[in-house]
Amino acid sequence: MKVFFDERQLNHAPTYYFRRGAAMPHQEQPQRAEILRDMLIGEGFEISKPRDHGLAPIKAVHNPDYVDFLPDAHARFVESAGTEALAIPTMHPGRRRGKEPKDIHGQLGWWMTDTSTPLTEGTWEAVYWSAQTAIEAAEEIIAGTRAAYALCRPPGHHAMRDCSNGFCFFNNASIVANHLTQKFKKVALIDIDVHTGNGSLDILYERGDIFFCSLHPDPTTYPTFYLGHADETGEGEGEGKSMNILLQQGASQDDVLAALDKGIAAIRDFGAEALVISLGFDMAADDPLAAVNVYPDGFAEMARRLAALNLPSTLVQEGGYLGPSLADNAKSFLTTFREATA
Amino acid sequence: MKVFFDERQLNHAPTYYFRRGAAMPHQEQPQRAEILRDMLIGEGFEISKPRDHGLAPIKAVHNPDYVDFLPDAHARFVESAGTEALAIPTMHPGRRRGKEPKDIHGQLGWWMTDTSTPLTEGTWEAVYWSAQTAIEAAEEIIAGTRAAYALCRPPGHHAMRDCSNGFCFFNNASIVANHLTQKFKKVALIDIDVHTGNGSLDILYERGDIFFCSLHPDPTTYPTFYLGHADETGEGEGEGKSMNILLQQGASQDDVLAALDKGIAAIRDFGAEALVISLGFDMAADDPLAAVNVYPDGFAEMARRLAALNLPSTLVQEGGYLGPSLADNAKSFLTTFREATA
Repeated sequence: MKVFFDERQLNHAPTYYFRRGAAMPHQEQPQRAEILRDMLIGEGFEISKPRDHGLAPIKAVHNPDYVDFLPDAHARFVESAGTEALAIPTMHPGRRRGKEPKDIHGQLGWWMTDTSTPLTEGTWEAVYWSAQTAIEAAEEIIAGTRAAYALCRPPGHHAMRDCSNGFCFFNNASIVANHLTQKFKKVALIDIDVHTGNGSLDILYERGDIFFCSLHPDPTTYPTFYLGHADETGEGEGEGKSMNILLQQGASQDDVLAALDKGIAAIRDFGAEALVISLGFDMAADDPLAAVNVYPDGFAEMARRLAALNLPSTLVQEGGYLGPSLADNAKSFLTTFREATA
Repeated sequence: MKVFFDERQLNHAPTYYFRRGAAMPHQEQPQRAEILRDMLIGEGFEISKPRDHGLAPIKAVHNPDYVDFLPDAHARFVESAGTEALAIPTMHPGRRRGKEPKDIHGQLGWWMTDTSTPLTEGTWEAVYWSAQTAIEAAEEIIAGTRAAYALCRPPGHHAMRDCSNGFCFFNNASIVANHLTQKFKKVALIDIDVHTGNGSLDILYERGDIFFCSLHPDPTTYPTFYLGHADETGEGEGEGKSMNILLQQGASQDDVLAALDKGIAAIRDFGAEALVISLGFDMAADDPLAAVNVYPDGFAEMARRLAALNLPSTLVQEGGYLGPSLADNAKSFLTTFREATA
């Protein structure tokens, strides 16, 4: 299994965000990627750097104006606000959207949905190389490799077509899925991060050639809210091509594996020719954002069942936070997937 | 001129909000209303308390689910978050809205657009009586009085049909305008707060029986952004019934009076039978949120020109912050309007 990572992804370093009326330490730390990188080296994975594939594969799934907003947004914020604070949106359009403003503070709220996804000085570089890492893995699969893992950070699956959301800026997994359609007529994206892949759902909702499936607790009572309900099954050409499998909060590992089997069966029915996995490790029982109870052997079993689909597979790193078992969970999943696809 | 106020409006006491990446002292303080109340008493106005008109006049312009969300939202936030922090939304739906969650933290972002409009323990009582004060003034006009002033706080003109915005929860002026249509076939609402009446625009955009006009700097570069552009002129039955008159940032008092004349001419052309004034004093040159340069004599002149429309007039207090001339500006406008309508 090929592995891709770029150290520039560490340059996004959000120190705080606003949550429940106060500034809180941010969970999506560079250290997450360092822990995963060090585990990979320890397990004998060879880590390659991605080439630069430019913005075209990103603009193929994101609103180009959103993409063009990001590179200098932090610098414009600092210049305008004259502050060392992070660029966090504090105003948003209502239901009647109106027009994009020219002022940076208005633009923050136009292109970003929440206060959990700050722009820092190094954010653009990290976001850009996170996406390039994902695209490189997709290129590897297009070239004929059986399995590739993109150690992406910041994560991507909450990022929507035209706005950042939930720690995510570019939807790396959707970029990969779209990129793979160059070669494969039918692509499946399954999201096993504990949070809903609301951004992927948004981006892929009308796509007939990409099947999207996400496992997560009911968004009625679990963040990131709003999207990911069982009755959201796609629209237009995408009708029936989106699937949200709801977990109980506190679900056991067996419950999660049973839900995974439903997703795998749907992917078989769809007739996918290639697989993308939005790979979060925050289903772990001891994850700081824990909602269900998966242990290292459960992650290994998930890897076995997904590998048994026997499809060219691109694994894209999503969440999984600084809990004690992060490295163990990643090791279990990735070494099992490596063995099963060797 | 009749004047209405209820002391319970002082119970909304936001201590901070998030702006430009940090917690900042909140400008919309109870003291604003106390300064205006004390000035009114000093100038010999008799202040009456509003009766309780219930929620029906409010739900006539706001989404009833939004109205029903507010009363216990702060208590639910405190219970869920276990914190002394203010209830400030930190997550919002993206463009693809999805569904209202049941979780209070998700609901905050569903019904509130920004971090500048915190819910505090006393917010509901203040918001409720701010609206009742406005409705009482409208009732007074319906009963035949020539002019009535509602000392409303929190202000209302940014509040949209189904979300709070920019320090505002219920759109008192739109509630008044709608209430007046019980008696008057054509009602005009003019907004001379320095900020766009984006909420009033949202609520009244399809109304053919209410003409809406707002004076403010270009929302492309001035908060609250997104709405209030010159080409937003109404839709459907409301086509041509919304008017945004843009001011230069830094505009002189003469510029503002010339813009006011345009609005007054449009109200005459519309054939309004009753007038509502969204009355902010933040066009003052020394307002903490200053963008243009109006002085006490300018506010008096605005009052004279608006009174010269010779229409039954409901004045609804909007913004105007704790600058040195707040009381003087209010005194100039309100005593002039009283004399001109005596």
